[in-house]
This record gives sequence, structure tokens and C-alpha cells, in this order.
Amino acid sequence: MIKNKMGNQTLDFSRRPVILGAASVVGKKEGEGPLSQWFDTVLEEDTFGEKTWEKSESKMLKTAMMEALQKSGRSKEDIGAMLSGDLLNQLMSSSFMARDLHIPFLGMYGACSTMTESLMLGSVLTDGQYSDNVIIGASSHYCTAERQFRMPLEHGNQRPPSAQWTATAAGAMVISSGKKEEEAMIADDEGNTKTPAVVKVCCGTIGKVIDAGIKDANQMGAAMAPAAVDTLLNHFADTGRKINYYDLILTGDLGYIGKDIAKDLLVDAGLPKKEVESRYDDCGAMIYAKEQDVHGGGSGCGCSASVFSSYIYKRMQRGELHKVLIVSTGALLSTISPFQGESIPGIAHAISLEIGQEER
Amino acid sequence: MIKNKMGNQTLDFSRRPVILGAASVVGKKEGEGPLSQWFDTVLEEDTFGEKTWEKSESKMLKTAMMEALQKSGRSKEDIGAMLSGDLLNQLMSSSFMARDLHIPFLGMYGACSTMTESLMLGSVLTDGQYSDNVIIGASSHYCTAERQFRMPLEHGNQRPPSAQWTATAAGAMVISSGKKEEEAMIADDEGNTKTPAVVKVCCGTIGKVIDAGIKDANQMGAAMAPAAVDTLLNHFADTGRKINYYDLILTGDLGYIGKDIAKDLLVDAGLPKKEVESRYDDCGAMIYAKEQDVHGGGSGCGCSASVFSSYIYKRMQRGELHKVLIVSTGALLSTISPFQGESIPGIAHAISLEIGQEER
Repeated sequence: MIKNKMGNQTLDFSRRPVILGAASVVGKKEGEGPLSQWFDTVLEEDTFGEKTWEKSESKMLKTAMMEALQKSGRSKEDIGAMLSGDLLNQLMSSSFMARDLHIPFLGMYGACSTMTESLMLGSVLTDGQYSDNVIIGASSHYCTAERQFRMPLEHGNQRPPSAQWTATAAGAMVISSGKKEEEAMIADDEGNTKTPAVVKVCCGTIGKVIDAGIKDANQMGAAMAPAAVDTLLNHFADTGRKINYYDLILTGDLGYIGKDIAKDLLVDAGLPKKEVESRYDDCGAMIYAKEQDVHGGGSGCGCSASVFSSYIYKRMQRGELHKVLIVSTGALLSTISPFQGESIPGIAHAISLEIGQEER
Repeated sequence: MIKNKMGNQTLDFSRRPVILGAASVVGKKEGEGPLSQWFDTVLEEDTFGEKTWEKSESKMLKTAMMEALQKSGRSKEDIGAMLSGDLLNQLMSSSFMARDLHIPFLGMYGACSTMTESLMLGSVLTDGQYSDNVIIGASSHYCTAERQFRMPLEHGNQRPPSAQWTATAAGAMVISSGKKEEEAMIADDEGNTKTPAVVKVCCGTIGKVIDAGIKDANQMGAAMAPAAVDTLLNHFADTGRKINYYDLILTGDLGYIGKDIAKDLLVDAGLPKKEVESRYDDCGAMIYAKEQDVHGGGSGCGCSASVFSSYIYKRMQRGELHKVLIVSTGALLSTISPFQGESIPGIAHAISLEIGQEER
């Protein structure tokens, strides 16, 4: 029995909603990384002029939302629903952002998988013709996350080599059932201008919670990798696609260690090693350079949210990437559960994005 | 311009998904309250045999999910997605429940509005034919919530008269695009058996975040009442319905004080006082008797989740209520934001349930 439209865990968005606009706001360190040129806004300093880190993060998310909206050519009044989440307890960044923007709001929590969770349900709302336009987003901030999940920065504790660096970043997208009225031209690296390709949301695979038994909060990549691989294998099974269907498969924030584990697991599951090596990457392994001293790579909701909303979206608009599977990965780590002897459950949701004509 | 299918903030579920099964699990105190007879499972003691309150709450939610599933006549394998949330940081109850049940999982956070948020998106998934069957739920526990939001119980602090009592309760529902193959007969108070009425989900209004400037965590009802009223007024505007369209309009957990504020605001907005008095009530004002010494009434995700999944669902099945608007209300209170001078934003989502033939 097919439980979901396209298979066991996969939903087909048959009307192909489009991402009308996307925007990213990142901190200073992220702006010094290898993806610097792709981000829309790079902060000069990570307080963003606010008195607390939480307010800084909320302002980053709000800025990303407003900028995505502006780029989409839609106004606040056109948006039927806003779906957003972050890592802070009670989604503090999203709640206060939503209070200011005054758009019907649905709070999402999937730890660092939040961006694709929001994209999944935002696509359902638009593809299903419940809302004409939906705005989605996610954020994280190094300073809020360290305080909440590990140690306040003032404590100055040493980070083990496997620890990941929570990205100070926010990403947002406007998903729509309609087209843009007027399309601004874009320029590529050589300065040639052209009409941007339309980025369509094609299908999505909802992840299950997978617990590999990892109990160390400094081993998040290892905790999430099995969930990412489970979602990927289910995506391939549900859609009948092979890895070479996609130009790029990009997990959220497994980091260097988790990425290696995921590659091993994918090859173990029978995927061709050459294809895994050439088509698979991870935002957490891309957002910082190794010299930036982040140890295990990047993490946080904002890591995949900002990379998808900038690097991926813009390269697709340029026609440099045609079919991309984005897979935000979340460690459902609680601040209480480790003290109660629990391990860290992981989850990952996958969304397939395409440009151009499809064979259907 | 109509942003959403049925108006500004309202989605129409035109295929009318049905609630195939619903179940509730409540604690000892809730089982001693006026709604006792309606709950499916009443715990003898609130640990539920677990070593920590968090594990107790997670087990209650899991039990409610399993029981709703069993009543729905569907199996775990038939369920396309599970949407659930709770009040604990990082949705600890839901995450660990989802790990055990192994159903594709989407985490929701809307504080105590989570039950109708999950019902909204679960209805979108089934009505939109993305999933054949979806399971949704929400939970709260007095002992976990007090520790997280106020003081650990061991502190024995005094509660002001306006403080509400977080319900130890969980509720779950199976929403389906299909019908039941076999319908078990139900009995009314007189012992007459009959075929239960089919409870349909008709439309839903997504709430905006409304902040009335309340900063006192012991005044949750006052913080949430304006959001509930805003959602109700938008629901009436979007649907063209008047208050007398519904047999009952039931907010989530405004409690005694918040309920009175909501009534005043509704009358101020021009709704007839007589209708407001006779058709409007609040789960937080219903779940405990005044003698139970809960001060401001009940609150928590589980309050509305358990009342909707038991009292409302069963009375509709019996044909005693035909049209009900359920409105879970959430205070997006963070454990950090009050220390940073922030007030408490509120949110409320409304879902319209009906039995019988409709004039359309």
C-alpha cells in the first residue's frame, strides 16, 4: 500500500511550486568562508546591533525573510503562511520574528532539519493550492546555541576535534504556486547577464527518527549520518531514481566526520563509490574553510538554510545545477535527555529541486 | 487578493478528511476532574512507571498515539506522516516517541496551540491527497513544565491565583482521506448503542502571532486571549459565518481569567453577548473542578489535545455536537525572553469539525 503520494515516505508536488525568491544573512566568520560571495548579507559583527544574541539571531531571520520577500516580487499581504523554526527553546527567534512580520505563522521544529521540513510543508500548502504564496525560513547563531546546548561562551571551554561550529546564519525562501510577473536579470561570474532559471520544488521525502546510539553532543555528525542515509535510500526507493539522477545531493550539517560516515554507509548500501564521491557533499563541510578552526565543520539550522538559499539557489538560477536533492539533517538533542541516559536521535528530510523541462 | 484557499487566513479542506480515531491519556488529577468519564486512559500515578517525568510524558504521548491508531482501524504501516509537538525544549516527548514508533515525523511547535497546528497540517496532507493517513498529537505534563518554565517542584514555591495548572495529558488523532472499513458501535449515557457519526475536518484558520504586552508568566490566559480572539474574528470574516453557526467554540487553555477576557473582547468586537455566553467555552476552564485548587484553570498542549480527543470527539460521534470550532491557544513564552525584557507573544489556530450532511 502506498501511504504517501509518491511512495512510502515521499510526496509528489505535481503542480511544481516554484521558489520565487531566496535570501541569506550570515555572520562575520561565515562571510570569511569559501561561500562568501554567494550570501546576500554578511554581518560586520554578529550582534547585528542588538543587546542579546537571541535578538541578533531573530533579527537575522527577519532580515532574511524580508529580503526573500522583496526578491520574490510579492508583498507581505500576498503571503498565506509563514513556516519557520530555529534551535532556541520555544523557537524564540522565529516567534519574535513572526510577531513583527504579522503573517499567519506555523512553528516548525526539526533541529537542523528545519529548513527542509518547512520547505516540505510550504510546498504542500502551495502545491495543494491551499496558499498562493508561503514564506519559509530557519536560523541559528553560534553564541545562542553554545549557551543553550553546551557552555556559555564566557566559560571558554575547549572544544574537542569532533565538535561542530554552529553557523551564525539565516535563510529564507518564498514558495509560490504562481510565476513572477517581472524577472530581474542575473549575472554570472564572467558578468554575462541572463534571465534566471525557474527553480521548481518537485518532491519531498519525510524522514523517520533514527537513533544510532550516539550519546556525545560533540559527535553530532555521527548521530545524524544514519538518518540522512536512511532518508536518501528511501528517497531512491520511493522515486525509482538512482544517485546519478541528481547533479548534487547535499546534506545539511553532518560536517567532515558525518560526511565521511554518510559516504561509507551509502557505499555499503550498494551505491557506486564513484558517484557518491562526485555527486554528494555536505553544507557543514562547505561553509567554512579548514583554516577557520571550526574543527568538525559547520552545523545549525542556519547552515543548510543559508547554503540552500544562496549557493544552491543562485547556481540553479544560473543554470549551473539542474537537479539537486537537498537534505537538511537534524540531531534531536535535548538539553535534558543526555542527563537521563538517552542517546541522540537524528532525522533528515529531503527535497528535490529542478530547473528546466522534465521528462515526466 | 485571496492569499489562502478560503480567505485571508483560512484553508478549506474541500475533500473533508475524517478523524478516524482519537485517544487521550491523562494524569491522576485530570482523571479526578469533571471530564473524567471521557478520557480513554487515566493514570494511577503520574510517573507512568518511568524514572523521569520527561520519560513519563513521552510514554503518555506514545500511548495516546498507539490507542488512536488502534481505534482508527489503521496500522502503523498505513500512516504516511506523524505530526506532533509538546512543550519540552527540543520537543523531547515527541522526538523520543517518534523514535520508538518509526513513522515519518514532522515536529511542530506552537506552544499550547500545537494540537490544532498539527491538525491543520495533517488535514492539508490528507485533504491534498499527499498522505492517505496521518497521525497527530500533543502532550504536556505538570512536572516537566513546572521545572522547565517556572520552578522545580522540589522548590515548593507558591503559585499566584492567576497561575494555570499545566495538564498532565496527551491527545492523538488519526486523520484520513478514506473511510473506516468496519465501525464499532458506541453507547451513550443511557446505554443505547448506535453507529458513531463521522467527524469531518472542514476548514482551518492559521493564526498570527499577537503580543498584548503581558510579561508575567503567571498570566498566560491574558497573554493568549487576544490571539484567540484575533483568530476567531478572522475565521468569521474569512468564512462569512456567524458565531451561531457553531454549537460550540472551544479555546484551548485560556483558563478562567483568559476566558473572561476573551468573552469581553468578543462582545466588544460586536458579537452578541447571549451567543458568546452560550456557545463559547475553554478547555482550561473545563478540565478541572474549582475545588481541585488549580487557581487559574488548566493549560499545556495536552489540555486541549486531550479534551478535543475525548470529550469533543466522542460527543460528536454520539451526535450531541454537530459543528464545533476548536481553537488551541499558545503562549510563545521562552525561558530566556522574559529576562531580556520581552513580553509573551500569543498564537491560536482554529479548526472547524462537523458531522452529518452539510449545505454547501
